[in-house]
Amino acid sequence: MDFNKWMNEKLPEVVNLLEQNIGESFDSQIEDGLDLAGRNEIYKILDNILAVLFPGSFSKEKLSREDINFYLSDMLRHLSFKLGKHVRDVFRYRCKKDNCENCDCETRASDAVKNLIEQLPYIRTLLMEDIRAAYEGDPAAQYIDEIILSYPCVEAIATYRIAHLLYKLDVPIIPRIMSERAHSLTGIDIHPGAEIGTGFFIDHGTGVVIGETCTIGKNVKVYQGVTLGALSPFDKKGIPRKGEKRHPDIGDNVIIYANATILGGDTVIGDGAVIGGNTWIIKSVPPGAHVYNRVRNGESNK
Amino acid sequence: MDFNKWMNEKLPEVVNLLEQNIGESFDSQIEDGLDLAGRNEIYKILDNILAVLFPGSFSKEKLSREDINFYLSDMLRHLSFKLGKHVRDVFRYRCKKDNCENCDCETRASDAVKNLIEQLPYIRTLLMEDIRAAYEGDPAAQYIDEIILSYPCVEAIATYRIAHLLYKLDVPIIPRIMSERAHSLTGIDIHPGAEIGTGFFIDHGTGVVIGETCTIGKNVKVYQGVTLGALSPFDKKGIPRKGEKRHPDIGDNVIIYANATILGGDTVIGDGAVIGGNTWIIKSVPPGAHVYNRVRNGESNK
Amino acid sequence: MDFNKWMNEKLPEVVNLLEQNIGESFDSQIEDGLDLAGRNEIYKILDNILAVLFPGSFSKEKLSREDINFYLSDMLRHLSFKLGKHVRDVFRYRCKKDNCENCDCETRASDAVKNLIEQLPYIRTLLMEDIRAAYEGDPAAQYIDEIILSYPCVEAIATYRIAHLLYKLDVPIIPRIMSERAHSLTGIDIHPGAEIGTGFFIDHGTGVVIGETCTIGKNVKVYQGVTLGALSPFDKKGIPRKGEKRHPDIGDNVIIYANATILGGDTVIGDGAVIGGNTWIIKSVPPGAHVYNRVRNGESNK
Amino acid sequence: MDFNKWMNEKLPEVVNLLEQNIGESFDSQIEDGLDLAGRNEIYKILDNILAVLFPGSFSKEKLSREDINFYLSDMLRHLSFKLGKHVRDVFRYRCKKDNCENCDCETRASDAVKNLIEQLPYIRTLLMEDIRAAYEGDPAAQYIDEIILSYPCVEAIATYRIAHLLYKLDVPIIPRIMSERAHSLTGIDIHPGAEIGTGFFIDHGTGVVIGETCTIGKNVKVYQGVTLGALSPFDKKGIPRKGEKRHPDIGDNVIIYANATILGGDTVIGDGAVIGGNTWIIKSVPPGAHVYNRVRNGESNK
Amino acid sequence: MDFNKWMNEKLPEVVNLLEQNIGESFDSQIEDGLDLAGRNEIYKILDNILAVLFPGSFSKEKLSREDINFYLSDMLRHLSFKLGKHVRDVFRYRCKKDNCENCDCETRASDAVKNLIEQLPYIRTLLMEDIRAAYEGDPAAQYIDEIILSYPCVEAIATYRIAHLLYKLDVPIIPRIMSERAHSLTGIDIHPGAEIGTGFFIDHGTGVVIGETCTIGKNVKVYQGVTLGALSPFDKKGIPRKGEKRHPDIGDNVIIYANATILGGDTVIGDGAVIGGNTWIIKSVPPGAHVYNRVRNGESNK
Amino acid sequence: MDFNKWMNEKLPEVVNLLEQNIGESFDSQIEDGLDLAGRNEIYKILDNILAVLFPGSFSKEKLSREDINFYLSDMLRHLSFKLGKHVRDVFRYRCKKDNCENCDCETRASDAVKNLIEQLPYIRTLLMEDIRAAYEGDPAAQYIDEIILSYPCVEAIATYRIAHLLYKLDVPIIPRIMSERAHSLTGIDIHPGAEIGTGFFIDHGTGVVIGETCTIGKNVKVYQGVTLGALSPFDKKGIPRKGEKRHPDIGDNVIIYANATILGGDTVIGDGAVIGGNTWIIKSVPPGAHVYNRVRNGESNK
Repeated sequence: MDFNKWMNEKLPEVVNLLEQNIGESFDSQIEDGLDLAGRNEIYKILDNILAVLFPGSFSKEKLSREDINFYLSDMLRHLSFKLGKHVRDVFRYRCKKDNCENCDCETRASDAVKNLIEQLPYIRTLLMEDIRAAYEGDPAAQYIDEIILSYPCVEAIATYRIAHLLYKLDVPIIPRIMSERAHSLTGIDIHPGAEIGTGFFIDHGTGVVIGETCTIGKNVKVYQGVTLGALSPFDKKGIPRKGEKRHPDIGDNVIIYANATILGGDTVIGDGAVIGGNTWIIKSVPPGAHVYNRVRNGESNK
Repeated sequence: MDFNKWMNEKLPEVVNLLEQNIGESFDSQIEDGLDLAGRNEIYKILDNILAVLFPGSFSKEKLSREDINFYLSDMLRHLSFKLGKHVRDVFRYRCKKDNCENCDCETRASDAVKNLIEQLPYIRTLLMEDIRAAYEGDPAAQYIDEIILSYPCVEAIATYRIAHLLYKLDVPIIPRIMSERAHSLTGIDIHPGAEIGTGFFIDHGTGVVIGETCTIGKNVKVYQGVTLGALSPFDKKGIPRKGEKRHPDIGDNVIIYANATILGGDTVIGDGAVIGGNTWIIKSVPPGAHVYNRVRNGESNK
Repeated sequence: MDFNKWMNEKLPEVVNLLEQNIGESFDSQIEDGLDLAGRNEIYKILDNILAVLFPGSFSKEKLSREDINFYLSDMLRHLSFKLGKHVRDVFRYRCKKDNCENCDCETRASDAVKNLIEQLPYIRTLLMEDIRAAYEGDPAAQYIDEIILSYPCVEAIATYRIAHLLYKLDVPIIPRIMSERAHSLTGIDIHPGAEIGTGFFIDHGTGVVIGETCTIGKNVKVYQGVTLGALSPFDKKGIPRKGEKRHPDIGDNVIIYANATILGGDTVIGDGAVIGGNTWIIKSVPPGAHVYNRVRNGESNK
Repeated sequence: MDFNKWMNEKLPEVVNLLEQNIGESFDSQIEDGLDLAGRNEIYKILDNILAVLFPGSFSKEKLSREDINFYLSDMLRHLSFKLGKHVRDVFRYRCKKDNCENCDCETRASDAVKNLIEQLPYIRTLLMEDIRAAYEGDPAAQYIDEIILSYPCVEAIATYRIAHLLYKLDVPIIPRIMSERAHSLTGIDIHPGAEIGTGFFIDHGTGVVIGETCTIGKNVKVYQGVTLGALSPFDKKGIPRKGEKRHPDIGDNVIIYANATILGGDTVIGDGAVIGGNTWIIKSVPPGAHVYNRVRNGESNK
Repeated sequence: MDFNKWMNEKLPEVVNLLEQNIGESFDSQIEDGLDLAGRNEIYKILDNILAVLFPGSFSKEKLSREDINFYLSDMLRHLSFKLGKHVRDVFRYRCKKDNCENCDCETRASDAVKNLIEQLPYIRTLLMEDIRAAYEGDPAAQYIDEIILSYPCVEAIATYRIAHLLYKLDVPIIPRIMSERAHSLTGIDIHPGAEIGTGFFIDHGTGVVIGETCTIGKNVKVYQGVTLGALSPFDKKGIPRKGEKRHPDIGDNVIIYANATILGGDTVIGDGAVIGGNTWIIKSVPPGAHVYNRVRNGESNK
Repeated sequence: MDFNKWMNEKLPEVVNLLEQNIGESFDSQIEDGLDLAGRNEIYKILDNILAVLFPGSFSKEKLSREDINFYLSDMLRHLSFKLGKHVRDVFRYRCKKDNCENCDCETRASDAVKNLIEQLPYIRTLLMEDIRAAYEGDPAAQYIDEIILSYPCVEAIATYRIAHLLYKLDVPIIPRIMSERAHSLTGIDIHPGAEIGTGFFIDHGTGVVIGETCTIGKNVKVYQGVTLGALSPFDKKGIPRKGEKRHPDIGDNVIIYANATILGGDTVIGDGAVIGGNTWIIKSVPPGAHVYNRVRNGESNK
């Protein structure tokens, strides 16, 4: 069949099948995404929040000092307006799923947006602490601005701090879209539910995974490929352990070198401990301990 | 030399050198990419296929239910038209390379596009199975829509299922551009040649590599950093083993935890096996077996 | 408070706080990024350099042969003009930081841009060598153009070769923005300071880290997850070892399989050595040696 | 007051005043335009209809013959979809104004759009007759394509023929937006209610006005500045004469030279008459008559 | 010479000549437009002011009632910001020309912008009066919204009322750019210096010219081609009569039909007078008089 | 029929009819515009030429002095490249129509573009003379820049001077597209074939028509609505008088006031003559004569 003809005769059938398909129920829920913010919209909002936090570095174009007040004001108004719509959508979505009645979800949605925007100056202060930690922790870093402009941990941690606030404000879905955006761009996957202290630094970062119930103290350094995960996501019957504490607790001033794996909700890494590269940790480590991968290439090469 | 002057006097020389360079032969083949689809064009087409499969979530802007039929129809027409051009280009490119005569490549190219578009409703059905597997397999997942909107495995597996179909339809080059696009966005690298069953779930995913001749059964779960690779890409004479079976076979209901490495074309992981994190597997594993990394931090810390 | 009212009354306060915050000193330095190129501008320039090096493949749209001279000329003029502005900005930024007086930084900035542009034909020649290595080293590769269009190592190595040249020309910050751009897109993190020989190939690539003082010989092959890192970024007093040699030297014709870790500034991998997957190397390896991970799944499973 | 402060403190008051103002009633009707198509949307639709009628000449970019079928199909689908929305809006708007109940306005709106689209091939045929008349009537015209590409009468008459069809299909408001668009671009003001025969040519055209109840025969030629108007828009009591016949009838093969004024609903210009430049006609002219401005500069110069 | 070669060798010379040319003095003034707002910027600002005054009709896209407050606020902030820059530029430009010292031009510029924005609700009120006059004066008008959406006089008079306010606030150049923008779009040329009362209506409008020192009373109607001009722009020595009163005064409730010409600074058209089409008026007309073109086609046809 | 269904079933028929229609012959010529530059492309090129001639005023955005050389160079390269394509297209089009063989049309096309670009500095010099004439001739003009930014005659005359040069270089069709673009924007219709001396000024301009075989001397002033036309475009047999001299000659230093009509190829207006408003001139006027409209409103009002 000629291509134009195929388009006119066959393609409409495909359209109808897809439309039906999209409208179909799954486990008797209507799941078509149409009531929710598309992820591209959330990405744009997140990019704009980052541009507000670090205007010179993350904005689309170079800014002059005299225009900065207008720029911030303009961006924040647009942000608030658009994020407001999407946050209301996700609250409504959950209300519908939960058959929630006489709820104050509309108000809570608006309050969440206001709260996030009002906390942005504080979030920036936290991030400057993280950036200072990067500056002090990386021999290659020369300028604070260089870190903001080029270190992937800045985007990853900034996104985490924003998503974490929305998570605590009980905003559904959007925090996860944000954290996966940072994951896509940096290879660093921090669940918005994790609790992370000030002065956090991740070097290189590709492959880092930090789980939902993880807690991390102050001034912790983490390298690429580090997993802070669950021993198993399933209980003994193979049922996912939703809601339970299942990821480790990391103390203050801990350093975790590349590709180390630390698993389990009962695993505690004490303050000041150093976890060597390529280690496999499923039991607690006392404060100040140094745990190394003892395999040496001399040995394994023999 | 003044910059404007340099632009007028020196730059034209650089242009001429580059133009020559680009037109030059390599192993007596003309290789300048000009006969082929640029990758950005293919990326846009792929994004649009994903937007057709999950309109609310992957489309550029929020859609209303009443416009969905028009939207799908419009997107599919554009897709078919543009993909049609590019698929014809890659077939022609291969014809030229192969000095293929009296071939039916034009027809096969058109048929491949029609086939892909006609299979999209079926591909969506497959993907809903994958998404259900994610929903059931991840304790943190709350809603089906949340998975579609934020889990990287959705984009990676959707892209794989599209690219795999084109691969089986013998479309050159484009399936690889597509799979590397998903690789770039998710850190998950699935070769379009791999054969993967229904209900496939990848959690976190950064660093996952699944090779060309790999087969994977139904309801398999895979975590970040898992390699399903070749023992060596070279034969004993150091010559690449093109075309041979060189990657493992994974049975049904297998779970493979983070950073496990499974290598070799003769390696078979039996149905229901569980492969622990950080393991190194180069021999077959029987059905139902549990293989764990036995190193413990208590021990290695001594 | 009503949302419109909140925008009019509360939001201006947030703006003022943020503006203050952004203008504030850190360690008595003004750090607001406003004097520097935003990273998005550098990303666009880098994309355009890649489009000039591989016009058909990396350009936004398909090009015809007859327009290629105009296209190259147009792109290079724009590139030179815009990169010129940004390079002058970063030189001025460093001058201000260093209180550099009577310096020839303006001239050096212009010269750096001219130098980069003039070297592009040579860089393309180098890259064609890298691509040839990929073609010869990967059993799955069918066409040179396929490699350019889809292999992440092309973007990663091309970006490295551009950033490395700027690094040697003493351009601050911009090389790092470029290398992190490639890191984000490919998961491959090559510091612009590393010295890498011709015919370099990285397969899959996610998680590869190559440190600042690393040297790599000719015709080296590297797989995903390989780290060429420092044993420790800190000296015994915990102070970062800036400037020192701290990453390994890799000889000619070396192969390093997936997830191998090679650490330390005194570690030398001799010519022709083969480093197996998942190995941990902190001592030198003689030429021609084969170092394998000796753990077998049969054993660890017992 | 400082400008930023003024924006934050004074501007919100202006916004509130304007918002109130816009929502206010006029003669107890709500008139805020929000229920209607904005004119820019209609302009875009009109531009697209013209691009469909004369693809090479009026499309945004050059088209190739092989893509023309797809182009037409794509444009017509978008056109139909968007125009459909706007036509439904204006029918609903009139329903609301007229308190029209149990009306079939939704159906009539859809039918009007379908009817217009289905008539486009016929409208193109009519326009080719008009263009032939231009070609034969203007000594300066060299090519048919030149006329389509550059003569303002083509845009004016094409817009008239489209708007006239919508006018006869009882579509409110939109035909007038269309005719005023052409008026703005060409200086030619043809009311969509006028009835104009085939082979119509307007040369230069600036200042031409053709009233709502005017009729014009076949093969008529008109030059710039010609008014075919009402003697007075008011009856003797000063009340606008809505609905009445108040503009002249022009026969077949009439020529009306520049700046002639022909007024009145009873004024008939007979077939084949020639009306000279700068004449003032308020009585009928018999078939074949030649009416000239008899003032000569020789006389008035004395 | 080959075209690419010509571009590289000959074109730079043309660039240098033009650059010189542009920088050259004219009557010893530097006139290169670079210190001033480009007209396209002013056009965009004007379009945005019109969109604020008539949001549904003149905005780029359809608006919903719930977003109107945000829309107005956003538009007005941008408007104020951008217009602020341009108005400061034109004041500075005049300062430089006039060697104005210790002037308060910066303040006056800011005040002019604030004043305009604060007057917008009042300007909208005036325009609603003009639109009411159109509604009552045109038999063809059916809806207020139809007039706003399609009558050229709305854009012409709205632009005039905005430009006139800036003119009275002593803003140089910008009012003229605005009035010529409306002239281009409507064929109606109203100098911003003219003083025009409420309830002003222009039908069709192409070719209308209203001079700088003209005054027009309340509820005046004017048709296409009407000139309210100067008898001569030069005094007896041929020197332009700058600043003098040189255009007519039109009383209240006057009607001036198509193509009438009224000239001279001493010419007064009394209240309620009716000026017929195609008349030539260079002396005053008493209140209530009806002046007609007495030429009849019957006569001139003989 | 449901709208979506109608789109799928009926619309393809309309597409086919239109496609046929567009491909159809007219007087056995194929006339579909597809071989020619679309008018929108030519409009963009013309806008860019104007932006090069008056960068600050006509460019899209404000320019800084330091970037002007790059801007001009960039614009001129693009201009030359794109105009080159279109000029070659129109030459080829004419070749095909004329069955021109062994012609040097390709060369002549390239030469025409080069010639135009090389003449731009000279054209700017001419235009500065025209602008000086406007400055001296209009009492309302305050600054040279004001004239460039707001007077419609600048765009009209600049376009004329560009189109006239292409006309003399025998470029078909494009000069007419350009002159009609200016006609649309200004209401001033100057045929590219007219010969116009230096220091030409048109005030207001709406409705001005200047015919193809017209000649105009130095320092001529023309007001709105002036026609310099043909007595009749037809010879006594009603056949268009192609190629003949049919429009008047205007001497040096002539002033022609608003709405004057001057017709005929034998009509000569002598140097220094003044033609009054609303006059009708079909015979020659001697040098220095003053021709006035002798009708007075006093008389005609009686």
